[in-house]
Amino acid sequence: MKLHIAVLPGDGIGPEVIAQGVKALKAIAMEFGHVFTFEYGLVGGTAIDAVGNPLPESTLELCKKADTILFGAIGDPKYNMDPDSKIRPEQGLLNLRKSLDLFANIRPVIAYEDLLNKSSLKKKFIKDADFVIYRELTGGIYFGDKIISEDGNYASDSCGYHRFEIERIAHLAFKAAQSRKHKLTLVDKANVLESSRLWRKVLMELAPQYPDVNLDFLFIDNAAKQLVMNPKQFDVILTENMFGDILSEEASVIVGSVGLLASASIGPKYAMFEPIHGAYSKATDKGIANPIASILSAAMLLDHFALFEEAALIRKAIDKSIKLHITTPDLNMKYDNISTSKVGDFIEDFINNPE
Amino acid sequence: MKLHIAVLPGDGIGPEVIAQGVKALKAIAMEFGHVFTFEYGLVGGTAIDAVGNPLPESTLELCKKADTILFGAIGDPKYNMDPDSKIRPEQGLLNLRKSLDLFANIRPVIAYEDLLNKSSLKKKFIKDADFVIYRELTGGIYFGDKIISEDGNYASDSCGYHRFEIERIAHLAFKAAQSRKHKLTLVDKANVLESSRLWRKVLMELAPQYPDVNLDFLFIDNAAKQLVMNPKQFDVILTENMFGDILSEEASVIVGSVGLLASASIGPKYAMFEPIHGAYSKATDKGIANPIASILSAAMLLDHFALFEEAALIRKAIDKSIKLHITTPDLNMKYDNISTSKVGDFIEDFINNPE
Ligand SMILES: [Mg+2]
Ligand SMILES: [Mg+2]
Repeated sequence: MKLHIAVLPGDGIGPEVIAQGVKALKAIAMEFGHVFTFEYGLVGGTAIDAVGNPLPESTLELCKKADTILFGAIGDPKYNMDPDSKIRPEQGLLNLRKSLDLFANIRPVIAYEDLLNKSSLKKKFIKDADFVIYRELTGGIYFGDKIISEDGNYASDSCGYHRFEIERIAHLAFKAAQSRKHKLTLVDKANVLESSRLWRKVLMELAPQYPDVNLDFLFIDNAAKQLVMNPKQFDVILTENMFGDILSEEASVIVGSVGLLASASIGPKYAMFEPIHGAYSKATDKGIANPIASILSAAMLLDHFALFEEAALIRKAIDKSIKLHITTPDLNMKYDNISTSKVGDFIEDFINNPE
Repeated sequence: MKLHIAVLPGDGIGPEVIAQGVKALKAIAMEFGHVFTFEYGLVGGTAIDAVGNPLPESTLELCKKADTILFGAIGDPKYNMDPDSKIRPEQGLLNLRKSLDLFANIRPVIAYEDLLNKSSLKKKFIKDADFVIYRELTGGIYFGDKIISEDGNYASDSCGYHRFEIERIAHLAFKAAQSRKHKLTLVDKANVLESSRLWRKVLMELAPQYPDVNLDFLFIDNAAKQLVMNPKQFDVILTENMFGDILSEEASVIVGSVGLLASASIGPKYAMFEPIHGAYSKATDKGIANPIASILSAAMLLDHFALFEEAALIRKAIDKSIKLHITTPDLNMKYDNISTSKVGDFIEDFINNPE
């Protein structure tokens, strides 16, 4: 298969980890006789520093003409500490999602057998946990109207949803549940929020089309608790943008490190693959950033093009690296000094010479 | 001391648990020679059923003329499953908070030594965890404009904050940190939300008035993770309404049961004390509801009137009941059949005859 892949390393540890994802894809191409080409674009704080725009037009064009997109990470603390700054790295990612209509963010959460002891949660609560979060990605409060009064003494954000925005991701989530354990949980705050009530209403209307799926509902506050009290109860979680942001970050506790979670952002035309972790600037260029989430993103990319055998080989390589403790310090209890790129090298070698 | 206390049992398990809180207060009055009088009012689903209004005028009057308020729980699933219903039990609580200007909800989270094994979190992560959440309670998205389009295909909620709303609770939180471990963490989403940036800005402006307090910032998604990954890092957490709702519910995982968490809702003129748990209708009238949060709310009420010795005695009684396994089934690993009222009886007896 020929694939032209847009690569957006972004900020902080983004470039280091994405380099390992690319390395894995190159090894796969070599092994399976595919032709993968890579073209790089600026995004985020790096793009602001270079051209004053967190999502330059050239980057957007690159993404639109490529077959798919591999994304690193975004964010720079220097902008967070200045509540007045008008241009922010995060706008690059938000605009990208919006411009490419990437409305569904899909985040699998699976507890690795060999890492159960890394979690702050007790083993018996997380062993065999296996669920996926469908997070709406282009609506809600992150994209709503923002107001700051002229005197700076009042600020507001609006959280809105259209029926069609709910329907399209709901269908994806129902279908995912059909191919899994037939359970779909909508997380909302329908006892207080009007937008949540619309979510609940639409889901109840669609449910009869999926009679083999068990639909239930949880309020976000309760869901944040249930996720760490009894994560095994979940199969497919569907939720709006911000609640999904919160729950998927929290869910990283189950797998022991946020450095292990990858995600796919899907739209009607484009698809982008990225680790769920942020730019983690403090760790930049220290060789301690965990590349697994980025390499797993590459595997999700392959799945998206039905290259299932290839994706499985990457996952097998990751499992092996974890079993042999060839991991960065966030996971490593055995060896020192296994750097980001060494983990990538191991996975590359394994792909080239699987046992 | 003479105290006239408005008692609002509310829905579900509210009446059963609040009865134990009242029992404890009566025992305290007897032991210490106080005169506590109790007057009951309707609120929530119970009030809708009785008079068609979740916060009847008579209840509001009762609260205003009383010295303070003890609150049970609110909510009824029959309203949640109907996204079209216009009157909801929760409006009773929200209106009460707003009408009485109870802008600060204060929720202590302390891991009980004898219950460390009840948590899904590993002991070493929660032992000695001791923090308090200051949740803004009368602003934000729960009180913002709600829109539903005429055709029902669009819905939105608005999250707004005025500077004064942030300042008044920020001062309380800074002061709390001064009397504790001198650390204050603001939880927001300032990289995306305008309202969050106002929070951050106001906090940075106030910080110089509290030079002995270490102020730091966390995004809500990261905070949801940190809370269960490393809860001991926290001292005072300050946050807006909905984020506080999410975090305080999630924090119940640390103490092993949501049935152990009490809260005070404070305003310039009034104060109300309530468990953080909801009405939990499924458990109603089964004698399995944990009354400790309600009894702890009574202790917080006593603290509020500087009756510290009295409050300490209630807490000692609770500790004793936990140590002796005189607890409801959610906590009990030793005995069956210890009901809600039996726990209350034990605490009453202990107050009357402390060792
Ligand atoms: Mg996040
Ligand atoms: Mg709550």
